[in-house]
Amino acid sequence: MKIVITGAAGFLGRKLSLALLGRQTPLPGFDQPLTELVGADLVPPPDLGDRRFRPAACDIGDAQAVRKLVADADLVFHLAAIVSADAEADFDRGMRVNLDGTRHLLEALRHGGRRPRLVFASSVAVYGGDLPEIITDTTHLTPQTSYGSQKAAGELLVNDYSRKGFLDGRSLRLPTIVVRAGRPNLAASTFASSIIREPLAGEEAVCPVTPDTAMYLLSPRRVIEAFQHAAGLPAETFGEWRSLVLPGLTVRVGEMVETLRRVAGEAVAARVRFVPDARIQAIVDSWPARFAPERGLSMGFAADASFEEIVRAHIEDELGGRIA
Amino acid sequence: MKIVITGAAGFLGRKLSLALLGRQTPLPGFDQPLTELVGADLVPPPDLGDRRFRPAACDIGDAQAVRKLVADADLVFHLAAIVSADAEADFDRGMRVNLDGTRHLLEALRHGGRRPRLVFASSVAVYGGDLPEIITDTTHLTPQTSYGSQKAAGELLVNDYSRKGFLDGRSLRLPTIVVRAGRPNLAASTFASSIIREPLAGEEAVCPVTPDTAMYLLSPRRVIEAFQHAAGLPAETFGEWRSLVLPGLTVRVGEMVETLRRVAGEAVAARVRFVPDARIQAIVDSWPARFAPERGLSMGFAADASFEEIVRAHIEDELGGRIA
Repeated sequence: MKIVITGAAGFLGRKLSLALLGRQTPLPGFDQPLTELVGADLVPPPDLGDRRFRPAACDIGDAQAVRKLVADADLVFHLAAIVSADAEADFDRGMRVNLDGTRHLLEALRHGGRRPRLVFASSVAVYGGDLPEIITDTTHLTPQTSYGSQKAAGELLVNDYSRKGFLDGRSLRLPTIVVRAGRPNLAASTFASSIIREPLAGEEAVCPVTPDTAMYLLSPRRVIEAFQHAAGLPAETFGEWRSLVLPGLTVRVGEMVETLRRVAGEAVAARVRFVPDARIQAIVDSWPARFAPERGLSMGFAADASFEEIVRAHIEDELGGRIA
Repeated sequence: MKIVITGAAGFLGRKLSLALLGRQTPLPGFDQPLTELVGADLVPPPDLGDRRFRPAACDIGDAQAVRKLVADADLVFHLAAIVSADAEADFDRGMRVNLDGTRHLLEALRHGGRRPRLVFASSVAVYGGDLPEIITDTTHLTPQTSYGSQKAAGELLVNDYSRKGFLDGRSLRLPTIVVRAGRPNLAASTFASSIIREPLAGEEAVCPVTPDTAMYLLSPRRVIEAFQHAAGLPAETFGEWRSLVLPGLTVRVGEMVETLRRVAGEAVAARVRFVPDARIQAIVDSWPARFAPERGLSMGFAADASFEEIVRAHIEDELGGRIA
């Protein structure tokens, strides 16, 4: 089978590529083994040393290029996006990639004639504004960012294209993914990875929010499992609606640092400095942190068992088990 | 002030044009009198005998044409749409008009440099699937038609363009409008007007659903009032979300015919024949009929007082007070 990943040069795209190439058995729900994996991004991802992997340069905002990219694909993971802060700063770029890009992809798949599966990476940023204490599967979407609005519109289209039988889509609303590898980026949530990643690597990290700030988190390992699990579920499982919130873990920032102390010791945890930043505090406080993701749980998606599991997974996967 | 109406050749577009031209005072919330009313549609509407009215041919799916159309507009009523059954039958046409058309309009207004007001005619078709008994202002949108999906996506964009300060939009979710003048169309709801309109005009009408079928209705008079009221409300009234359900009346079809009997007599009511149609029954049963539109009520929107008021208004407005 042929799989295409958009946004394949990103942190999750690369991990998903490696996971798919590393599978010993076909994806659940598919009977063919992986024969071709196209990893597409604006700048193509580096080669992964597997003859089945083909890096591809593709601007998702270019309808023609997208059509060529996904020809004959049996399954597409659509991860390409302009992230939150970026889409807010450059509205046109966000619309072009997050909305038009998704639309180009849907159209290309519709006209490919194969009714392929599509896994769309949405986000809990579709929630916003005046929300209930606990977000349920029936909480309405009133996003307060362009990114969230574009993702919510994308979900509507994925659902409608699926309902019409043009393709077989499923949209996963991702929690904040922690611990991301690499360097801090411009996302307001970047500290949530930094306060674990940097201390473990021997560096100081600044935490701009108070210890009692709660966040809704999922590890890279679990989200990569979720992408594959979502691809394999029968269409009937989704009923009349193709979106769901991935189960995650609600953790206070103070607990995150405590866990780091427990796992890596006082010296490591002491590398986190709390330096309040009212602007970031306000943004993070506006994000929903408590969810009752019954639908995702009933479909077999799983959150991390504990924040400790998340920290240990990061140490294993990114640091080869070593703490600086 | 300059006002533009898209879909001006339609039943509601024409009524709204006449209402705006007939006002003795400026719209509430505006201090300037109407100096130019552009009525745009694919085929331009007929002249209305008022020098302020300018019929215009405009394909809303053509970005350039839309930009020209709304230049210098202070207020736009966006009524142009491919309706439900049509958008379901011709997916591309629905996307082009209902989604791209709305987008072209938003972009044109954004770049017009005036931050104009926009009233967007959405629909209760944004609701669908597994719904609660009573729809509230926080019920989630899971549309089960392309029309509903496109309207819901349009609402997300209207909200985001407003949040960004590109324009000042408000989206009204319209109930089924009854009694529409003219002839039956291809909408599954067309009978709801026919069973009143045809008997009053001396013709037979077929009702394809059972008397206990409930519908959520609003009269042409009230919706035209609602469009004008929505235009005048201060932006702050809307808070973080620009959409609302218009208050309507929940009426069983049997009550509708009973009301016709009371208002126009047995001979007229006897012109309605109940001929069950399982396909139409299923479609109508899938529409939500019970709402608690607190938000709309608190903003001063009003439903009709009774179905009798709706019937009498039709007789006055469309039949010059005469019953055949």
